[in-house]
Amino acid sequence: MDFARLRRKTGSMKDSGLFTVDVPLEHAAYSVWIGEGLLAHCGPKIKPLHPGGKVAVVSDSNVAPIYGAVVVDSLRDAGFEPTLITVEAGEASKRMEVAGQIADQMIAAGLDRKSLLVALGGGVVGDLAGFVAAIYYRGIPYVQIPTTIVSLVDSSVGGKTGVNAPGGKNLLGAFHHPVLVLADPSTLATLPDREFYEGFGEIIKHACIRDAGMLDVLDPERRNDLSELIARNVAIKAGIVATDEKETKGERALLNFGHTVGHAIEQAGGYGRFLHGEAVAIGLHAALLLSVQKSGLPAADARRVVQIMEAFQLPTRIPADLEIDALMAALGRDKKFESGKIRFVLLERLGCGFLSSNVTVEDIRTVMERLKDVATT
Amino acid sequence: MDFARLRRKTGSMKDSGLFTVDVPLEHAAYSVWIGEGLLAHCGPKIKPLHPGGKVAVVSDSNVAPIYGAVVVDSLRDAGFEPTLITVEAGEASKRMEVAGQIADQMIAAGLDRKSLLVALGGGVVGDLAGFVAAIYYRGIPYVQIPTTIVSLVDSSVGGKTGVNAPGGKNLLGAFHHPVLVLADPSTLATLPDREFYEGFGEIIKHACIRDAGMLDVLDPERRNDLSELIARNVAIKAGIVATDEKETKGERALLNFGHTVGHAIEQAGGYGRFLHGEAVAIGLHAALLLSVQKSGLPAADARRVVQIMEAFQLPTRIPADLEIDALMAALGRDKKFESGKIRFVLLERLGCGFLSSNVTVEDIRTVMERLKDVATT
Repeated sequence: MDFARLRRKTGSMKDSGLFTVDVPLEHAAYSVWIGEGLLAHCGPKIKPLHPGGKVAVVSDSNVAPIYGAVVVDSLRDAGFEPTLITVEAGEASKRMEVAGQIADQMIAAGLDRKSLLVALGGGVVGDLAGFVAAIYYRGIPYVQIPTTIVSLVDSSVGGKTGVNAPGGKNLLGAFHHPVLVLADPSTLATLPDREFYEGFGEIIKHACIRDAGMLDVLDPERRNDLSELIARNVAIKAGIVATDEKETKGERALLNFGHTVGHAIEQAGGYGRFLHGEAVAIGLHAALLLSVQKSGLPAADARRVVQIMEAFQLPTRIPADLEIDALMAALGRDKKFESGKIRFVLLERLGCGFLSSNVTVEDIRTVMERLKDVATT
Repeated sequence: MDFARLRRKTGSMKDSGLFTVDVPLEHAAYSVWIGEGLLAHCGPKIKPLHPGGKVAVVSDSNVAPIYGAVVVDSLRDAGFEPTLITVEAGEASKRMEVAGQIADQMIAAGLDRKSLLVALGGGVVGDLAGFVAAIYYRGIPYVQIPTTIVSLVDSSVGGKTGVNAPGGKNLLGAFHHPVLVLADPSTLATLPDREFYEGFGEIIKHACIRDAGMLDVLDPERRNDLSELIARNVAIKAGIVATDEKETKGERALLNFGHTVGHAIEQAGGYGRFLHGEAVAIGLHAALLLSVQKSGLPAADARRVVQIMEAFQLPTRIPADLEIDALMAALGRDKKFESGKIRFVLLERLGCGFLSSNVTVEDIRTVMERLKDVATT
């Protein structure tokens, strides 16, 4: 794992270190800065990358009241003309109509094709606002300022933007890379417990597919000084994205570990019942069991990961009221089921994921039934 | 003008010749086929470009009843599984919600990221369905089958896709090139007169900026054997697009000749009052007068073009009830007004357009007032 790529920097930020991870893409290289206090310094960080003028700061009804003003003030002090646009918090905002409404407000505020967008919030805001940036005047530059663990370690890096359709999650979207990602772990202090822990679903996923050593340092009690852990995760994500920018080579598909079943649970449960990381945790459990069965992952290793997820208060079983048939129907609409064929990510061992074509729809049904009925593996 | 690039081919099509124009883009080269009878042969033409499977044929309530079956049948005979999706005809369908509804129907029909979309119709269908193709699973391939003159000679080539926002036309969209364009001029036979003539707004625009000789051959009485004229126009459009794929070099901006005022008229008049080519004709008149005033176009040449537009029953003046202030307000939202600066296309002489920064907002107001009040130039 190329953790050496993380460079510790001393800056003017409060006390803790400042990390940067580069995402070296062919046409759209950009950097991720990670450090406490970055939010209040976003203006000076963004300024060198954009000639200035109007900026839409897109946020949601949870995040805007807490962090909207500090971001807007920093941008204004740096010479930008920011407009704060707020959507209702929650997955339900991630749809075409809301994207259109954000664009309407940007037009009303006078933003044009040279303007900038800043996405301030969690994964929903990042995906939605990034999608608006992708299509506004056929594409304007944007900056991600993620404020949740999931968005810090996962969704803010990689250029996937989009909205949900009634038929499935993230089915409509565009690849559009940010020009900069500013991750300020101090925003995690205001997260409700459930949303704090949720993020560890993606972190544990990264550990499973690329960095088993990370499992040793995960501590559910620790809520501060998370910059280094986050940087470590961003480096994993960035490395995979740089290798396979548009998910054409298989490498990027590794990031879907746990997501096939996870997406089905999110969809069948109705968006909102499970947070993304929670559904992923259940999906990880399914994928771990399939790895034991199909690719020789030691059962003790699978149990260890499940215990870590439980320590982070993540669900690991399918609730009794979720029908397996409904989950199977949702599964069929997942983007990973290309033209009817299944691609499923398994682990050879902890830290080593691979793309398998050796998992059938029936295998998935069986493991889901097992996760629903049996008490503990 | 590189008309030599048109290759006349003999094919199995009915009686008339078959023309092809290549659009040689760096990452997305594709061909435009022009010939009567192509509609019924679309399946075999598309087949070599796609492995098969599900296809969404997106059309509108005017076109689908006439040509939907022939396209669907040809696709099915070629081994595809086509699904016809129909939207209400008219500019009002070109919005985010309708794009989402089309995607929902595609999901319901089981299309995935390997599937194909065919846009069958005029400019509205091409822009809207092309946009859906651009964002469906973050982009699937699509084929344009234009059925109006505007879409045959202009909008089906160039990769601009998108929808309107309340604040302005085409403000949301993506660059997404078709894999193939099949233009069948026999579809023009069923166009109402008004929509037939509308298309000559764009043809006359092409003549003004690149091919003055075309003005000599335009004949409002001729409704058949238009393949060569259409191919000549596609070649102009393709040549400009190939030089400046994403409108970053100025070349492609030439295609906006007449469109600054044209878009303002479309928007201020309410979409639906003017057809696109009609609004463009008025805009061309404004741009011709500004060219006389600013860049030495002989007044007699401007008059000649206006007379040709009148022969094609195109409007050339601003109706008395359209307020100049409303037009000026609409102007400010046009994509061409980047960060407050005006880029305006003028003619040095007929056949030779250029991008000028020598036109002020006041100049545009003055010429619009003149077009509203004075009887004939």
